[in-house]
Amino acid sequence: MHLHVVNPNASAEMTAGIARAAEAAAPAGVTVTVTGAAGGPLSIEGPVDGAMAVPWMLQRIEEAEAQGVDAHVIACFDDTGLDAARCVARAPVVGIGEAAAHCATLVADRFAVVTSVPEALPVLRGNLARYGLAARCAGLRAAGVPVLDIDAGTPEALAAIRRETAAALDDDGADAIVLGCAGMASLAASLSEEFGCPVIEGIAAGLSLAAALAGAGLRTSKRGGYAFPRKTAAS
Amino acid sequence: MHLHVVNPNASAEMTAGIARAAEAAAPAGVTVTVTGAAGGPLSIEGPVDGAMAVPWMLQRIEEAEAQGVDAHVIACFDDTGLDAARCVARAPVVGIGEAAAHCATLVADRFAVVTSVPEALPVLRGNLARYGLAARCAGLRAAGVPVLDIDAGTPEALAAIRRETAAALDDDGADAIVLGCAGMASLAASLSEEFGCPVIEGIAAGLSLAAALAGAGLRTSKRGGYAFPRKTAAS
Amino acid sequence: MHLHVVNPNASAEMTAGIARAAEAAAPAGVTVTVTGAAGGPLSIEGPVDGAMAVPWMLQRIEEAEAQGVDAHVIACFDDTGLDAARCVARAPVVGIGEAAAHCATLVADRFAVVTSVPEALPVLRGNLARYGLAARCAGLRAAGVPVLDIDAGTPEALAAIRRETAAALDDDGADAIVLGCAGMASLAASLSEEFGCPVIEGIAAGLSLAAALAGAGLRTSKRGGYAFPRKTAAS
Amino acid sequence: MHLHVVNPNASAEMTAGIARAAEAAAPAGVTVTVTGAAGGPLSIEGPVDGAMAVPWMLQRIEEAEAQGVDAHVIACFDDTGLDAARCVARAPVVGIGEAAAHCATLVADRFAVVTSVPEALPVLRGNLARYGLAARCAGLRAAGVPVLDIDAGTPEALAAIRRETAAALDDDGADAIVLGCAGMASLAASLSEEFGCPVIEGIAAGLSLAAALAGAGLRTSKRGGYAFPRKTAAS
Amino acid sequence: MHLHVVNPNASAEMTAGIARAAEAAAPAGVTVTVTGAAGGPLSIEGPVDGAMAVPWMLQRIEEAEAQGVDAHVIACFDDTGLDAARCVARAPVVGIGEAAAHCATLVADRFAVVTSVPEALPVLRGNLARYGLAARCAGLRAAGVPVLDIDAGTPEALAAIRRETAAALDDDGADAIVLGCAGMASLAASLSEEFGCPVIEGIAAGLSLAAALAGAGLRTSKRGGYAFPRKTAAS
Amino acid sequence: MHLHVVNPNASAEMTAGIARAAEAAAPAGVTVTVTGAAGGPLSIEGPVDGAMAVPWMLQRIEEAEAQGVDAHVIACFDDTGLDAARCVARAPVVGIGEAAAHCATLVADRFAVVTSVPEALPVLRGNLARYGLAARCAGLRAAGVPVLDIDAGTPEALAAIRRETAAALDDDGADAIVLGCAGMASLAASLSEEFGCPVIEGIAAGLSLAAALAGAGLRTSKRGGYAFPRKTAAS
Repeated sequence: MHLHVVNPNASAEMTAGIARAAEAAAPAGVTVTVTGAAGGPLSIEGPVDGAMAVPWMLQRIEEAEAQGVDAHVIACFDDTGLDAARCVARAPVVGIGEAAAHCATLVADRFAVVTSVPEALPVLRGNLARYGLAARCAGLRAAGVPVLDIDAGTPEALAAIRRETAAALDDDGADAIVLGCAGMASLAASLSEEFGCPVIEGIAAGLSLAAALAGAGLRTSKRGGYAFPRKTAAS
Repeated sequence: MHLHVVNPNASAEMTAGIARAAEAAAPAGVTVTVTGAAGGPLSIEGPVDGAMAVPWMLQRIEEAEAQGVDAHVIACFDDTGLDAARCVARAPVVGIGEAAAHCATLVADRFAVVTSVPEALPVLRGNLARYGLAARCAGLRAAGVPVLDIDAGTPEALAAIRRETAAALDDDGADAIVLGCAGMASLAASLSEEFGCPVIEGIAAGLSLAAALAGAGLRTSKRGGYAFPRKTAAS
Repeated sequence: MHLHVVNPNASAEMTAGIARAAEAAAPAGVTVTVTGAAGGPLSIEGPVDGAMAVPWMLQRIEEAEAQGVDAHVIACFDDTGLDAARCVARAPVVGIGEAAAHCATLVADRFAVVTSVPEALPVLRGNLARYGLAARCAGLRAAGVPVLDIDAGTPEALAAIRRETAAALDDDGADAIVLGCAGMASLAASLSEEFGCPVIEGIAAGLSLAAALAGAGLRTSKRGGYAFPRKTAAS
Repeated sequence: MHLHVVNPNASAEMTAGIARAAEAAAPAGVTVTVTGAAGGPLSIEGPVDGAMAVPWMLQRIEEAEAQGVDAHVIACFDDTGLDAARCVARAPVVGIGEAAAHCATLVADRFAVVTSVPEALPVLRGNLARYGLAARCAGLRAAGVPVLDIDAGTPEALAAIRRETAAALDDDGADAIVLGCAGMASLAASLSEEFGCPVIEGIAAGLSLAAALAGAGLRTSKRGGYAFPRKTAAS
Repeated sequence: MHLHVVNPNASAEMTAGIARAAEAAAPAGVTVTVTGAAGGPLSIEGPVDGAMAVPWMLQRIEEAEAQGVDAHVIACFDDTGLDAARCVARAPVVGIGEAAAHCATLVADRFAVVTSVPEALPVLRGNLARYGLAARCAGLRAAGVPVLDIDAGTPEALAAIRRETAAALDDDGADAIVLGCAGMASLAASLSEEFGCPVIEGIAAGLSLAAALAGAGLRTSKRGGYAFPRKTAAS
Repeated sequence: MHLHVVNPNASAEMTAGIARAAEAAAPAGVTVTVTGAAGGPLSIEGPVDGAMAVPWMLQRIEEAEAQGVDAHVIACFDDTGLDAARCVARAPVVGIGEAAAHCATLVADRFAVVTSVPEALPVLRGNLARYGLAARCAGLRAAGVPVLDIDAGTPEALAAIRRETAAALDDDGADAIVLGCAGMASLAASLSEEFGCPVIEGIAAGLSLAAALAGAGLRTSKRGGYAFPRKTAAS
């Protein structure tokens, strides 16, 4: 099986980091190709970055479709451009935010999301409502730590993430944690051990769900909302 | 007061049509500038067209912001790029789909949307859910008529629109009709007279709501979900 | 354009205050007539006051209809008697609570309501649910200050309102504030400046939305829920 | 136990009919006093009739409270003035529409409402949403028959009610029927036998629930939404 | 009238305690038979206990049906096996958790549940959502006290229950309290007096609602979700 | 990886059929053990069968846990005993109904369920609501064909399933079909080809999701709703 993971931003460093995480998380027997956008923003923080990134990301999806990959994973917790990506693909497309939330509801009664900065919360809140999983979400929390500090693994960043994880479990009543930021992927295992509950990061969840859909022979519906775009002339 | 109406697609004909509708519908004392995207798709039918159009549309919003307009109207019933547009603007931004739906709930208990083709329904359905107005929507109906035939005003197109309007009122129990396609704007008055109920088209609703927000001194919040984008380096 | 603002209670002082606020907030080119109930309670605090006030208010709506006004505004944040008022009017009818909430969702992702006393919260909560806007409301807060103290502008009242405003933004995650009490109208501008976000008061929002609906040529639907009452004999 | 049933309209005939139905349905050991409004509309069809009726109905509730009744039943399927009635009463207050719907969810998975005229549907739909029982309602149907014809028991009225009952069970998937009009009370038993499912009318349901609440020693909460009205001066 | 109360667990002590509470709460003229499961778990704390208890409980329901009781009450706040019980019964079946919640919405705008241990919350939360009453629930709180300590009436247990009751009223904004544990039944009256609001325990609520349904002549629908099970061969 | 599929009923034929379907659908590198209940009902049609089956099914889950399987699949579209099964397992547990619905929302905007008999609909409707996926479900349809006829593959059964599939796509607006009956598994491929859209059966979906969760290293949370049962004495 051949999966395509696309980083919707143009940061080569982030693409490399995602590639490392994907390699570590790839299911057995699965080949993973990781691509990054050739243009657009270097990170995606909010709706404008998302909007500027999607056209570049769709190129990568279409190229990988042409090469016959079995499924696509959008490696941004915002699930940037998910609906548009499904429209250009026959193969299934999974966003890592969506994947982590679906997995959480299968191993816990209620989950909470712990992410980097408060600016990220509105998009995540809207996504969960659209997926129908908002009622299973006990809380959305931001550690108040920039993505770069998380990537650097500073002690302050780690302390803030652990503090919000504890609050999500104890105060919000969550049974599982979804890490809402790609840069937190490497923390999942140690946090899960420390807090004694599932701690779900999106790259592994996304690869696993994408492989599950492709393995079950499923492809994106071309009726209704995800139909291929009509060939409209561009100016 | 100076309002900016942006056609998010690159069709000069559509921009001209929107300009005519906007001129007819402009509140007294309001100057309207209508712009169209300089690139991107020639029409917006589905999520991919929408995604490709937004970067071009945001340019127009930013230019108009720089010129100090009092509010913006996105002249596509899909409310293409609404969240991103709010992020780059201080002035209020209103989508014509959103405007029509809000107005409908202020003059009727339940409304229905009549649009052109079934492919348009999933985006409209998702939008109404996000605005919180889905529970007031008695039905979403497509006349099964391409936008070009609607623009041409063929008898078949008109008959199909009248048939779905009647069904929305009689079978779905709607009290008012929202016309879910910019090309139907010129039909609103005659349909309203024929069926004896409010028939709301988005250009007039959008201009009126935009003027209302600006007139009340309101501006887009820069806290939370619509904060200005951080200046991120582009590749 | 001629708008009718009705104060549903019988306090001449409040009617005068509403008239001052309406004059200050009236859109350009709009004539405003402010009326007050000829009988019924002197203030509306809870469902019983509301119920006793509606018959008197409907008289004012019917008189103004007969005089041919273009729209009506109900100047009570409870939106007292809104459905009944729509039934007796051809012109659009807007409640100031409803108007402020709709406007809030057009300039902010999530809003909070700050009102006077906790007794006011249940009616407001129920209204937001009916309008479909509850999911966009981050919190409902009472300053714990009687309306008279707010009108008098005591330092204690002001401090309590500012404290709840800060909590709504910081703790509840609101991006905009709706002032849930007509007596707070004069505070909107200074609070907006202090907290750097939209602070919406209902008189201005209501007048603006009413003018928008009338300006767009809309009238209350007489199909379904807002049909004119049948002429039933009264005892 | 002493229950008070109030007819919120001023029709002596309807009050007499309600008294007959109440007598037939009264639980063992329960004394029922039936009152009717001394003024206001002769029937309640829509929000305006409801609004004009409530002040008169509240008088009857207050008088019965003063006499020490154990609970009140509002004998109109619209549950006219229910919140206000709870504010003036210490004893529990139950509306017959609300009572029938609650009972339906206790003996069936999904119920449908069959009422007289389509004008009645919007109020019923709004009430079910507020009670939280809308998700259990499979459909709201109007027989298209005026209340007077139902009272007269014309064959056409009966046929229409049977037709809508069958459609609610077969097409909407309801397991039980709520009769949404006080005049249909006498039909409940024969319809239940014919269709082999619960057919619930409000007078019996309301008396039974009111007796249940009183028997369990419950009284209306005076904290929060149903607090006694403050003594406000009336003009 | 003859009501059947079934304790779904196999503890003879608990059955005896339920019998005492039922005797105290039985409506006038009502005979109550209390049974307990002949096997299965000695208490029901979570989904596994519930699952193991249901087959034994259904035996008791079927035996009581054969004896012609008028209604059944399931005396566990989890409403263990409620849907299955309705399938084997013609007479109405009411769970005490469900009964208390329905009663609460009839005497208060918003209620809170105070129960024993946090492990009980997920089942209660799920039940309220299914009944449609979650929107009326201001909070679910656990006193953190084992059932045995509550039964023993230790001062610590009482203090914890009073602390959570106060928090539910003051912090969550509840107007009434539902006691979410059969062992708290004897505290209802004194808590109601102390806090000045309805405090509802399930045994009394369940008996009252069951008597109300039976008194109104209602029986469980055998169409749709609660149809009798087909006679399927057992292995 | 070692997956455990449990047939919660006691029919050896069904267990054998499930084993054949599971073998056909097993992801590469996955060993599947299929077990069936040692007692209880021979088929699960409604809540009573479900209740009687769960204790036997939990035995199989516990035995497989003891043998160290990596995940469990409950092979009944009702997701019988899912919460209880999660409580006794460390490994993830997935129901085939839940699995099919989650997969459907990842490859289609809206799905419909086509099942055997109308009696099955209430349980499925309730499950979708609990999973949060009801808003994505365009319709629930029963072919009106007994399970045995589906298993036998009679022409009438096939015709009825094709008729409801067409209606779900054309009338309900679904983009994908979920086959709501284990016996339909062999039809998925041909229906998908005929109707040109995803047709999802639960065995393949369940195995794929279970393997995905296990592959991602996830285990059922033992905090909150799925905690291990306390060791309570059994009578």
